[in-house]
Amino acid sequence: MSIARPSGRAPDQLREVRIERGFTRHAEGSVLVSFGETRVLCTASIDNRVPAFLRGKGEGWVTAEYGMLPRATHTRSDREAARGKQGGRTLEIQRLIGRSLRACVDRSALGERTITLDCDVLQADGGTRTAAITGAYVALVDAVRWLQARREIARDPVFGAVAAVSVGVYRGVPVLDLDYAEDSDCDTDMNVVMNDGGGFIELQGTAEGHAFRRDELDALLALAESGVATLLERQREALGR
Amino acid sequence: MSIARPSGRAPDQLREVRIERGFTRHAEGSVLVSFGETRVLCTASIDNRVPAFLRGKGEGWVTAEYGMLPRATHTRSDREAARGKQGGRTLEIQRLIGRSLRACVDRSALGERTITLDCDVLQADGGTRTAAITGAYVALVDAVRWLQARREIARDPVFGAVAAVSVGVYRGVPVLDLDYAEDSDCDTDMNVVMNDGGGFIELQGTAEGHAFRRDELDALLALAESGVATLLERQREALGR
Amino acid sequence: MSIARPSGRAPDQLREVRIERGFTRHAEGSVLVSFGETRVLCTASIDNRVPAFLRGKGEGWVTAEYGMLPRATHTRSDREAARGKQGGRTLEIQRLIGRSLRACVDRSALGERTITLDCDVLQADGGTRTAAITGAYVALVDAVRWLQARREIARDPVFGAVAAVSVGVYRGVPVLDLDYAEDSDCDTDMNVVMNDGGGFIELQGTAEGHAFRRDELDALLALAESGVATLLERQREALGR
Amino acid sequence: MSIARPSGRAPDQLREVRIERGFTRHAEGSVLVSFGETRVLCTASIDNRVPAFLRGKGEGWVTAEYGMLPRATHTRSDREAARGKQGGRTLEIQRLIGRSLRACVDRSALGERTITLDCDVLQADGGTRTAAITGAYVALVDAVRWLQARREIARDPVFGAVAAVSVGVYRGVPVLDLDYAEDSDCDTDMNVVMNDGGGFIELQGTAEGHAFRRDELDALLALAESGVATLLERQREALGR
Amino acid sequence: MSIARPSGRAPDQLREVRIERGFTRHAEGSVLVSFGETRVLCTASIDNRVPAFLRGKGEGWVTAEYGMLPRATHTRSDREAARGKQGGRTLEIQRLIGRSLRACVDRSALGERTITLDCDVLQADGGTRTAAITGAYVALVDAVRWLQARREIARDPVFGAVAAVSVGVYRGVPVLDLDYAEDSDCDTDMNVVMNDGGGFIELQGTAEGHAFRRDELDALLALAESGVATLLERQREALGR
Amino acid sequence: MSIARPSGRAPDQLREVRIERGFTRHAEGSVLVSFGETRVLCTASIDNRVPAFLRGKGEGWVTAEYGMLPRATHTRSDREAARGKQGGRTLEIQRLIGRSLRACVDRSALGERTITLDCDVLQADGGTRTAAITGAYVALVDAVRWLQARREIARDPVFGAVAAVSVGVYRGVPVLDLDYAEDSDCDTDMNVVMNDGGGFIELQGTAEGHAFRRDELDALLALAESGVATLLERQREALGR
Repeated sequence: MSIARPSGRAPDQLREVRIERGFTRHAEGSVLVSFGETRVLCTASIDNRVPAFLRGKGEGWVTAEYGMLPRATHTRSDREAARGKQGGRTLEIQRLIGRSLRACVDRSALGERTITLDCDVLQADGGTRTAAITGAYVALVDAVRWLQARREIARDPVFGAVAAVSVGVYRGVPVLDLDYAEDSDCDTDMNVVMNDGGGFIELQGTAEGHAFRRDELDALLALAESGVATLLERQREALGR
Repeated sequence: MSIARPSGRAPDQLREVRIERGFTRHAEGSVLVSFGETRVLCTASIDNRVPAFLRGKGEGWVTAEYGMLPRATHTRSDREAARGKQGGRTLEIQRLIGRSLRACVDRSALGERTITLDCDVLQADGGTRTAAITGAYVALVDAVRWLQARREIARDPVFGAVAAVSVGVYRGVPVLDLDYAEDSDCDTDMNVVMNDGGGFIELQGTAEGHAFRRDELDALLALAESGVATLLERQREALGR
Repeated sequence: MSIARPSGRAPDQLREVRIERGFTRHAEGSVLVSFGETRVLCTASIDNRVPAFLRGKGEGWVTAEYGMLPRATHTRSDREAARGKQGGRTLEIQRLIGRSLRACVDRSALGERTITLDCDVLQADGGTRTAAITGAYVALVDAVRWLQARREIARDPVFGAVAAVSVGVYRGVPVLDLDYAEDSDCDTDMNVVMNDGGGFIELQGTAEGHAFRRDELDALLALAESGVATLLERQREALGR
Repeated sequence: MSIARPSGRAPDQLREVRIERGFTRHAEGSVLVSFGETRVLCTASIDNRVPAFLRGKGEGWVTAEYGMLPRATHTRSDREAARGKQGGRTLEIQRLIGRSLRACVDRSALGERTITLDCDVLQADGGTRTAAITGAYVALVDAVRWLQARREIARDPVFGAVAAVSVGVYRGVPVLDLDYAEDSDCDTDMNVVMNDGGGFIELQGTAEGHAFRRDELDALLALAESGVATLLERQREALGR
Repeated sequence: MSIARPSGRAPDQLREVRIERGFTRHAEGSVLVSFGETRVLCTASIDNRVPAFLRGKGEGWVTAEYGMLPRATHTRSDREAARGKQGGRTLEIQRLIGRSLRACVDRSALGERTITLDCDVLQADGGTRTAAITGAYVALVDAVRWLQARREIARDPVFGAVAAVSVGVYRGVPVLDLDYAEDSDCDTDMNVVMNDGGGFIELQGTAEGHAFRRDELDALLALAESGVATLLERQREALGR
Repeated sequence: MSIARPSGRAPDQLREVRIERGFTRHAEGSVLVSFGETRVLCTASIDNRVPAFLRGKGEGWVTAEYGMLPRATHTRSDREAARGKQGGRTLEIQRLIGRSLRACVDRSALGERTITLDCDVLQADGGTRTAAITGAYVALVDAVRWLQARREIARDPVFGAVAAVSVGVYRGVPVLDLDYAEDSDCDTDMNVVMNDGGGFIELQGTAEGHAFRRDELDALLALAESGVATLLERQREALGR
């Protein structure tokens, strides 16, 4: 079964992935991640306080916020700050990013501090949330290295690695890493967050056109596994491991 | 592999499911659904207008709103209307309910009208979103029958049926239909929305404690398939089919 | 002077009143009160804190919140949580409920704790605020009994009883306990909150069509006194006194 | 039965009432009303539009908004515009003012226009809502005269007159027109809105300390009737009738 | 070069300035300032707390809030409290007033207390922000005298004086103290805040029609210097210095 | 008079200025402007509608919005979208940018369309608003060229050019283009917006420490004139003129 993806990519081919550390200078970690034309700035900020529900427990917290510049998209969207609230999609995505990153952090080892991962989309072409998770992991590691360099923490609170990719059924064929043209015209869309042990952290699949069968799901999961493996490799290269 | 579930249920056993039609009288569809101690009032309201983005296209819309009474839970939560906004969890759930129900509606057959599914949790004991989807389907069918009885629509816009259930890994064992005691102490939690053709509509899995392996995922999906089959049967009975 | 009330009731006849305790299980007090087709769920929740203005004074607080499910009414209303604020009518009613219930509570005997009465209308057919006050009293007593059973308070902070009813001039005739059909077509509408000593707690009369004369006021007050007497009796029965 | 009111007034004595027309120049009606040290600026603004629910019906609308300057009171209150919402008390009062004034307006005679009565308290010493209603009536008449002078309306839409006063039980004695010192220390507080035919428009009584008996209510109503009669006389003098 | 100003004033002529102390009675300072038909009520309120960022530093704070009654203007504006937020213009003006007044206060001498200057426009005819600054200075001095009379502060925290005036290019001619008719039809508008040492505190110039040249700027500054000198004289007279 | 600026620059020396067109691909104009370490992404978006107050008048509109990524600064700031409103500083800056750019646009030539300039600060080191104005001008020209290339407008609506720079008195010496280290420690801070005819568009000077004298003002204006001249040159180079 062969299709022409709008981008000309093979069904199991990722877009070009770039991970640029130190993109801005104030944050303890600052990464510009690109999945093709999707570009997300991920910063990690350290604060020596924790939310009220954790105070005095000796544990840290990792959380995320997500935003999209008004003209990151084909047509301009309203600025959420001007509308006076974050939309449902934004809240959903930032909750997903936060949960995903907490899955690779030992919060006791972090101590009573919060790391906030701000993921701001400078340019959108599909897959902003998976790019954000993949880039935020690198920013998180940089922030932790910053703490270690200052000897503020004794042992590394990050265990393993986390990356994410989207998969979907496009014109009947399972494909990896949907861009906007594919995303807006596909039958099924799934975001998969995995760790470097091959375990699943989050799985969010949505049937857009028609419900997906079990065999389609299996094919999508296989694609996601191979895509995440490559992304984890890119993270290691970027981090000089 | 045997565990004691807090409720004493077998791993593949649903809680008692009750679907009570006509619970309130003003709405075109009104269903009180219970999954054990979880009770959700689902009403379907018909409005002869559609959102701006659909005007003049001859298509209808199906959307959902979700709420929780302040003391539906063990300890009282703030009232969202008093805090001045709906939280991220609420928005995430109501978007999920809306997408799930739209997956069984032919919006052209519905015509230019909106059906709003209000799912309000009277009492919570885990699984409120899956109960809401399962009950909202029945309320939706009742609202459509109301339209048919008035001959306002020519053919039935609802095709097939949709139901949802949660599954999770509790103390190492895959179990079906988590209650609150299990939900707050499990490693993995997954909500599965399916249709009566055995297709998946939505899949949302989250690793709480540790990442889940592929074989655990397969076991969870098998449990979900059997649970949804029973729920679809309960819906048919309630609807007198 | 004889009229046909839409419901066929006599001018001084209440609708059927039902008070069902223990309607939900988490709240310290939980009452479903029905005045005919008007059904309000009243829960009483205990919190071991008081608002800032009372801290350290050894006194407790009793407050109320009021809400209406979107489709409790003939046509669907916007959800206040979604609109981002509570309307003027909601605030006015919940302030009234709170003041009314505080009128029968010795706040020193309650100690530094807050009891919040959530009154949520499941189905509306006129008189939701008077049903709410009448039901919230029973939920309040149940919450206080819960405290007494745990020996958390030494003496009963509730003195006497409080109930409420509406009266109005419908087509020239004073009538008791207006339902929606009467309420939307009456000249004068008055809500009366009284205690079991025959004293007035709150009196809120509004001329809808034309101003009401002193003799009409006297007739309405007499109807209210008899209606409240019956409601107080129903409360006693429900509480097993 | 004799008491010393803090102000030295007799129980049935109003504070000095002043009604100053034309206090500001842009509004079609602009009145500074003083009940003793309570001073409220009431403006009436005409707009040639009506709210959506009245469009095309040939009827007008009368509505009110109420505000308090932050330092109108003994201690500074937060500015509602800065807090981002109007409080429950504000909404309750402005709804009361609007209903009261609509009770003397023939909205068909007004035609499709809205008159907004803004009542802003410059200095508060008790009774701001009753002063606001009494002053807003005069501003309303001035706005109507402005329309008549321009021959924009054929006949006078204002029939009769409306005024309001507070009464209460202070240290066991029914008194008229409570100032702040009395208001914060009284057992019962009632606001009474009446027309010049002796009819009641609104009645809002609240037991602060203990419930009030029927005979106290009768005494309060008698005081209110006499107080309103004097206020109606002051309005006529101010309007040069 | 000669023009006819709408008001008939000479180009370098201020409107009639009135500064009325003690306009309301609760505030520690209360001034009604008039620049012609522009009338602003400025109150100074003392609070024995400081914002969080100053706590424990032994310094005080001076801040301002600005508001406009809905019908202070030719046509009614929406009430900001009802719209649920202060507009950009309001925030900009109140920040300007606050900065201007802080420029003449030794915050160490004030001690840990906040003085809030509420500037509420009762009637607007151009120049409300400059009138507000000029009047707020007098209210501030009165509040400080109140503290001194109670011996709560050892030395006067106010050094020098601050006043403000607008200047603009109207039909090609630089003029002083624009009223509304001039303001809405001028090419350049500048607000100038100065102290009694001839120093500039704030300068805010905006080209409305065309950019202004350096020689126009010089002429405007000269006008502003003379106007402020007169305003400072009026302040001294009002304060009985 | 000689000082050491923290950056080692001469008093009249700008930071390195970079203007990078086409930084993102969806917007009709997209410019990354850098004033040293301050980096602002300015996009121009065209919409074929105008605000309500301009509809049917044949004129266009130019407006601006400003934002700062949470970690653009030394310490993380709250995200305005999460707090639910834009702060006073943000509103003030975006109003300034909008006014400044409208000063070089013939809105009749633009026709009934809106150009929105989004200025988002990726990294802040002082002077974000002046960098934003300088960069937004280039984005605006690119958007107009886009319209011209499609022959949607007949003549160029942009006349002249606009650029902005900050000046201030740092340790007694007037300096050009303050960076963060200087800005947070200077006595006077002034933002100057000028056009290429040498005219002033906006002038906003604030005395931080002590009031500034007229001779200081003259020195600052001279510095600003020379700085803006250089910036206008950089704009021309970037635009290939």
